[in-house]
Amino acid sequence: MTMMSAEQYEKSLRRLNLVVYMFGKRVENVVDDPIIRPSMNAVAKTYELAHRPEHEDIMTATSHITGTIINRFTHIHQSIEDLVKKSKMGRLLGRETGCCFQRCVGMDALNALSIVTFDIDAKHGTEYYKRFVKYLAYVQENDFTVDGAMTDPKGDRSLPPHKQPDPDQFMHVVEEKKDGIVVRGAKAHQTGAVNSHEIIIMPTLAMREEDKDYAISFALPSDAEGITYIMGRQSCDTRKLEGGMMDQGNLLFGGHEALVVFDDVFVPWDRVFMFKEYEFSRQLVEQFAAYHRQSYACKVGVGDVLIGAAQTAAEYNGVERASHIKDKIVEMNHLNETLYCGCIACASEGHKEPSGTYCVNILLANVHKHNVTRFPYEISRLAQDIAGGLMVTLPSEKDLQAPETATWLKKYFEAHHDIPTEHRMHILRLIENLTLGTAATNYLTESMHGAGSPQAQRIMISRRINMHEKQRAAKKLCGIEE
Amino acid sequence: MTMMSAEQYEKSLRRLNLVVYMFGKRVENVVDDPIIRPSMNAVAKTYELAHRPEHEDIMTATSHITGTIINRFTHIHQSIEDLVKKSKMGRLLGRETGCCFQRCVGMDALNALSIVTFDIDAKHGTEYYKRFVKYLAYVQENDFTVDGAMTDPKGDRSLPPHKQPDPDQFMHVVEEKKDGIVVRGAKAHQTGAVNSHEIIIMPTLAMREEDKDYAISFALPSDAEGITYIMGRQSCDTRKLEGGMMDQGNLLFGGHEALVVFDDVFVPWDRVFMFKEYEFSRQLVEQFAAYHRQSYACKVGVGDVLIGAAQTAAEYNGVERASHIKDKIVEMNHLNETLYCGCIACASEGHKEPSGTYCVNILLANVHKHNVTRFPYEISRLAQDIAGGLMVTLPSEKDLQAPETATWLKKYFEAHHDIPTEHRMHILRLIENLTLGTAATNYLTESMHGAGSPQAQRIMISRRINMHEKQRAAKKLCGIEE
Amino acid sequence: MTMMSAEQYEKSLRRLNLVVYMFGKRVENVVDDPIIRPSMNAVAKTYELAHRPEHEDIMTATSHITGTIINRFTHIHQSIEDLVKKSKMGRLLGRETGCCFQRCVGMDALNALSIVTFDIDAKHGTEYYKRFVKYLAYVQENDFTVDGAMTDPKGDRSLPPHKQPDPDQFMHVVEEKKDGIVVRGAKAHQTGAVNSHEIIIMPTLAMREEDKDYAISFALPSDAEGITYIMGRQSCDTRKLEGGMMDQGNLLFGGHEALVVFDDVFVPWDRVFMFKEYEFSRQLVEQFAAYHRQSYACKVGVGDVLIGAAQTAAEYNGVERASHIKDKIVEMNHLNETLYCGCIACASEGHKEPSGTYCVNILLANVHKHNVTRFPYEISRLAQDIAGGLMVTLPSEKDLQAPETATWLKKYFEAHHDIPTEHRMHILRLIENLTLGTAATNYLTESMHGAGSPQAQRIMISRRINMHEKQRAAKKLCGIEE
Amino acid sequence: MTMMSAEQYEKSLRRLNLVVYMFGKRVENVVDDPIIRPSMNAVAKTYELAHRPEHEDIMTATSHITGTIINRFTHIHQSIEDLVKKSKMGRLLGRETGCCFQRCVGMDALNALSIVTFDIDAKHGTEYYKRFVKYLAYVQENDFTVDGAMTDPKGDRSLPPHKQPDPDQFMHVVEEKKDGIVVRGAKAHQTGAVNSHEIIIMPTLAMREEDKDYAISFALPSDAEGITYIMGRQSCDTRKLEGGMMDQGNLLFGGHEALVVFDDVFVPWDRVFMFKEYEFSRQLVEQFAAYHRQSYACKVGVGDVLIGAAQTAAEYNGVERASHIKDKIVEMNHLNETLYCGCIACASEGHKEPSGTYCVNILLANVHKHNVTRFPYEISRLAQDIAGGLMVTLPSEKDLQAPETATWLKKYFEAHHDIPTEHRMHILRLIENLTLGTAATNYLTESMHGAGSPQAQRIMISRRINMHEKQRAAKKLCGIEE
Repeated sequence: MTMMSAEQYEKSLRRLNLVVYMFGKRVENVVDDPIIRPSMNAVAKTYELAHRPEHEDIMTATSHITGTIINRFTHIHQSIEDLVKKSKMGRLLGRETGCCFQRCVGMDALNALSIVTFDIDAKHGTEYYKRFVKYLAYVQENDFTVDGAMTDPKGDRSLPPHKQPDPDQFMHVVEEKKDGIVVRGAKAHQTGAVNSHEIIIMPTLAMREEDKDYAISFALPSDAEGITYIMGRQSCDTRKLEGGMMDQGNLLFGGHEALVVFDDVFVPWDRVFMFKEYEFSRQLVEQFAAYHRQSYACKVGVGDVLIGAAQTAAEYNGVERASHIKDKIVEMNHLNETLYCGCIACASEGHKEPSGTYCVNILLANVHKHNVTRFPYEISRLAQDIAGGLMVTLPSEKDLQAPETATWLKKYFEAHHDIPTEHRMHILRLIENLTLGTAATNYLTESMHGAGSPQAQRIMISRRINMHEKQRAAKKLCGIEE
Repeated sequence: MTMMSAEQYEKSLRRLNLVVYMFGKRVENVVDDPIIRPSMNAVAKTYELAHRPEHEDIMTATSHITGTIINRFTHIHQSIEDLVKKSKMGRLLGRETGCCFQRCVGMDALNALSIVTFDIDAKHGTEYYKRFVKYLAYVQENDFTVDGAMTDPKGDRSLPPHKQPDPDQFMHVVEEKKDGIVVRGAKAHQTGAVNSHEIIIMPTLAMREEDKDYAISFALPSDAEGITYIMGRQSCDTRKLEGGMMDQGNLLFGGHEALVVFDDVFVPWDRVFMFKEYEFSRQLVEQFAAYHRQSYACKVGVGDVLIGAAQTAAEYNGVERASHIKDKIVEMNHLNETLYCGCIACASEGHKEPSGTYCVNILLANVHKHNVTRFPYEISRLAQDIAGGLMVTLPSEKDLQAPETATWLKKYFEAHHDIPTEHRMHILRLIENLTLGTAATNYLTESMHGAGSPQAQRIMISRRINMHEKQRAAKKLCGIEE
Repeated sequence: MTMMSAEQYEKSLRRLNLVVYMFGKRVENVVDDPIIRPSMNAVAKTYELAHRPEHEDIMTATSHITGTIINRFTHIHQSIEDLVKKSKMGRLLGRETGCCFQRCVGMDALNALSIVTFDIDAKHGTEYYKRFVKYLAYVQENDFTVDGAMTDPKGDRSLPPHKQPDPDQFMHVVEEKKDGIVVRGAKAHQTGAVNSHEIIIMPTLAMREEDKDYAISFALPSDAEGITYIMGRQSCDTRKLEGGMMDQGNLLFGGHEALVVFDDVFVPWDRVFMFKEYEFSRQLVEQFAAYHRQSYACKVGVGDVLIGAAQTAAEYNGVERASHIKDKIVEMNHLNETLYCGCIACASEGHKEPSGTYCVNILLANVHKHNVTRFPYEISRLAQDIAGGLMVTLPSEKDLQAPETATWLKKYFEAHHDIPTEHRMHILRLIENLTLGTAATNYLTESMHGAGSPQAQRIMISRRINMHEKQRAAKKLCGIEE
Repeated sequence: MTMMSAEQYEKSLRRLNLVVYMFGKRVENVVDDPIIRPSMNAVAKTYELAHRPEHEDIMTATSHITGTIINRFTHIHQSIEDLVKKSKMGRLLGRETGCCFQRCVGMDALNALSIVTFDIDAKHGTEYYKRFVKYLAYVQENDFTVDGAMTDPKGDRSLPPHKQPDPDQFMHVVEEKKDGIVVRGAKAHQTGAVNSHEIIIMPTLAMREEDKDYAISFALPSDAEGITYIMGRQSCDTRKLEGGMMDQGNLLFGGHEALVVFDDVFVPWDRVFMFKEYEFSRQLVEQFAAYHRQSYACKVGVGDVLIGAAQTAAEYNGVERASHIKDKIVEMNHLNETLYCGCIACASEGHKEPSGTYCVNILLANVHKHNVTRFPYEISRLAQDIAGGLMVTLPSEKDLQAPETATWLKKYFEAHHDIPTEHRMHILRLIENLTLGTAATNYLTESMHGAGSPQAQRIMISRRINMHEKQRAAKKLCGIEE
């Protein structure tokens, strides 16, 4: 077996023994927990679509190490075409789930490590790449979902790791053993953490020699001893506990983030991919970040859903032919397709690294992600404009069912005699979900901070621009000779 | 008594017998319901601050009919200064409550009626103004909170009231009796409805003769027989049921909207302020709308809270001195103060109507509100940028209390050794509340649609501009003589 | 005589003996120079309109020192109403001239000095205020146009005045005599310099004790010995030399800026208003800047012209009823009126200073000007959108006259059989003038940098915001007690 | 010879006998006219760079009809790679010339015709494609610059061609002869017209049967009998007559547009590529427009120049390290690279047409161009912010040379002792040129209207979006079954 079905994926998760806390209590059955399950459904979609003939070109790839057909999420990009397909896969899944499907972070971590382990070996004569390829084969063979973990809590932002009053604010080695290392620390905001089989740890910033104990990268099974998951809560999360079919907006899918605590966890040597080679931490961060910024292709797909919902709401409201409505729909599409241009362009302008892995154009990947920190907010604003105020004054689904109120709601919220009032309520709840509810945490706030906050992209843009070339051209044209 | 205290206000609400539904059930105790109560608290603040010496200049006024000191929310504006103070009152209360305090809509309805009833009488020799003044005196004397209700469900948006398949989609007279009239219909999105003692109904759009049965305005006690309230739900509403002190973000205040159904309700003649004078419906709509668009001064105050929260979050995160953070704070303030300019300018440029009431500059009030449909979204986006991703990945308050997780959260979410982790969590929850949660429905979506959706303002702007004057100037300068 | 007519103003200028250079040559006849004259015409308009009954309320005021009716440009604001009228005067003149009419800078300098001289005297027991009032009476009596000069060349931006390699980069005292002082330096970007009777010098930034030789303010006749004017050139300036009636766009009015060099100029003591009281330089800069930022009310009037021109172009092009055109016109108006709100609000929220002068609200004046650095650019962009590409591909006026080409142009540029092709060309040339030509330097670049560049306003906004109050409100609402 | 050198190109232009009017007079020597010459220089650059080894990969291609190396501007795109290189060629030349280099419009016309002639033949059994390929070989062999002419004057915008009071408002057949046709009409805004050897005419909009006389496409030598060129004038055009080395900003390059009148011009049949096949006019318009919207890749290159100039100005002003300056430079780059993403993505997502020609993705090409109607304006605004006000108040070059003023200018405009004042003036003049002067007509107004005005792109975006797919996804997620 190299590609699991959605059912097999679910079953495989049941075999994990994760230590998960939520609302102050241990979650005994993670897979069936009503708040977590929609996020599992979203990851499951990455398995399901890989088996659909109409999507196989995008969803699958041929392993460059085994030659077998694998899920693209476990693939190392072998060409520009692979990079472009990755962007298209993100849009497809965003559109089919309307949320964060969580699996790209592991793909991005694997690809970044495929480059950096190779480069470390080239300099230091180490064997990280060999270890990594063996691990990769294991992931591909088992079609695992992998969490790629980068963000440390960071404590006092003005201090480097080794100067922190609490040394655990950055993940670090606490003991070096014959057969492996012991690590301590935590990773925050871990998307899809409890839906993953594996977790790959990477350093969170460029480091100097003094921080070398923090310059480590490794992989662990998600249920390794000593790992604890504390679930983050989302806007409107508990609507999923209400047992209805409408008020949660997106009936099927969601995302999640967790704080993952590593309390003296043992890592065997064959799963260690960087160990104190601090001078490579910057490269690992930048390349992982670039891949992951490309991954925000997914938001184009979520944008598709929001645009489709806004258009539908306009039709249900009976105003879809008003010129200002049509114009706002065009604007939403224009912004969404501008984002699409970004994720396609950074792929199309990719290049081959020494390891053979294809990497996106780092400048353009940053430009793309930077637009993602802006346009979804404007698309949301326009969606709320089109939806109308009812989106936030709609009574609950239970009011639609209770005899005392159902008549009134059906009577007074009917805008179009062909459209059941329920449909109008459904679509408004979906827009609420995407612009204020559980999905808004993905479509908006995660668009802002995921894969690095806006300022991180601005710094990368300023570094990657060839300013000299621009100044040379300007001076020449106006006659300045130096 | 002309000015109730907050306590008296609460007590007065307990005497009402409202028929309120929420989550499919009748709410037996409206005042103490945990979801509704924060909205009552917010209205109560309008009573409390009127007794504070430092705010009395802004919060109170002298009744032009009785000469006694009254709460400004029941006042008819007698000067430009009154109009300016109204804007300042809105900002003050927005800042003190961080949400919609709901009482302005009644003030705006009273002021609009003070003009229009006078003008109808002048044309038709009717006695509406006399009735109105008597009613006004009653409201001022009792310091009532009044709901001003304009928005009808509207059914098929392409048809005028009299052509609707369901005639009740616009409020209308169903029977004319000796002592009064019987009305039927509904008003949607009624802000603060169940915290009000009275409700004033106005038509929702300009009407023609064929629609004269719909051209009606009147006042009723909020618990008149035949009125039913169905509460709208808000993003994150049920966090108020969780019994905590943190996750609801704003611990004290909130807003609410309701659908208000009028099922053959009787209105005595002395409470009828417009009856089939359809040609005045446009004026009433436009003047009420202009006053109410001014009222979005409140969002400047809510903006103050969000800016204060963002600055605090930056300090707690330890990044308040980063130049990009300072720049974003400046931008938030710049946008917020630009909004302030709008609500001050439309007041400062007000004028006296024939009835003696001062009305805001209608063009500028529309310009102001139109900016309110934009800038809070950008301010929110910047606040989320500054807050950091933790805002949407923060575990629940219960995790902070449970022994298994508390240690980890306190350890790993500490960014600044002088700041308790709880403080950091509190402020992030407030930003979540304002940008995604219950208050976001007020600060964002209500800013979009309250007092008229953006397109309504654009239409008014195009109508109120003196384009001829601009074209004359342009033609003269470039030498076009016509 | 206290108010000159436009003719008297022109005649008075002819009596001046200014040393003016342009295109490398001394300008012998400044008033009749075809490049300079339109700027003189614009200043003349400030005289002409003061005699028009329909504008006298706005254009004139009663002198608080003599009680006579004076041109408002020489008035010290005695009330909020005065401040509001000043904003309206700016918009009026902007609309009537379509350019910078240059006279506000002197008015703003006089008002700022009326405050600061009083405050210096209060601290130091000096007699500056008395001197100033005497000078003011002289200006009012003669209805002078005064240039208010603040911006020094500044040399190395990283160094304070006293550390500059060239000490003249900031205006300073080079000799102190019994009867006065001798000064040296230059003021850059002086708007309307050669149309002025007087020039008032102020320091350009906050100074410390080491810079006290630079902390000086004084007034001089514009043709005092030792002053040289070097005219700046503007986009399309030489079209005014072509002798036509169309291609210059605005046939009548324009603006100008000049570098003004002071080469050891003598200033008698009774015209010195600050002499080494360095601790007042910041106040003088900030208050002058605030007044002058309010003065950007003029751009609202220029915006009126551009909107009128765009609407006219749309009509001439035959597309004025297209929904996207109407929507763009609304947007232009919305932005323009938002600017208007700013200049009204900062006036309406003004206050009385110890000297009795009313000062604008400094925070809001900065907010207003900051919007002026943005919105005119967007209004211009929309105007170019509406105008169509012909605006930049239109042949010259001479082609319209030459027999070989006139037929083709008249035939092929006719879009509307009722509208002469000449009219269409006229209006497009006006839009070109305002968005690319001589007036664009005023409407765009001067909007950016005049009265301080954008960053100057951002610094003032950050200083004037009461952040503590906002943080207090936020913390209280989310339960943080400190 | 298949690729001319720049010198050969210039010589070849001298052999043309064009009828050109400017400023009401016939231009006797077009090539050496000081206003026109910079635009010839810009086209010449397309010849020069094709011979440079470092650019040959981008600037040249292999003809698919002859197999010889040709200038890419005469090439029919044979692959995605060709499309991507076309975008890169545009950026390269934009950066090297800082203006519109005019040659892309012919390339786009050739490519569009290569598709449409093939498709017409497939339907009608005609021989247009054969004719076209023969003509193409001639163009490639001679390395011609071709003007692609689409925009008719259009007369009354509310009427189709056949209903125009003046039938010549759209180019049409006036006589059909044995050996060819006679055409009448005009094409407006023709970029680079007088620098071209050939001109290709295309219809300007989708046509119906009644308009079939207008559904024509053909090619002519630019100096065919009956063709007259009337040059459009640009902002600051006459600075090129002043004979200086500074005030024109860009010392070397420029663009031009002309009105081209066809007064009963004969076209032989072998140069007619569409004749009354009205149903193909829409396709020709849309595909030409799509290619040409891609061509706005050039503005990214012009943006490079403006960014380089702004950075240089900041350095010369001594403020390049200020955080707000750095931030604005990042923003300019971010916007510019977002544009780059658009022109790369529409190429990368191209497809093969039946004729074998590769066509860009039409949706994304429109999205790209639509951003070009916005971002250059904001980049310009930021450039003006960084440049400082001196950009519009700088005295003339002659003042820098005249002894009376030179000393003052050198003294007072020196901001940095290492940088000659002349350099500072040069770079400011270049920014003026790009944001207000001759190049602004290309970088701004042409960005707005060239290749179709913004609304044209919005219409195409709304047509090309798969809204059904988006609505399907949205409905499925929220549970709406239809």
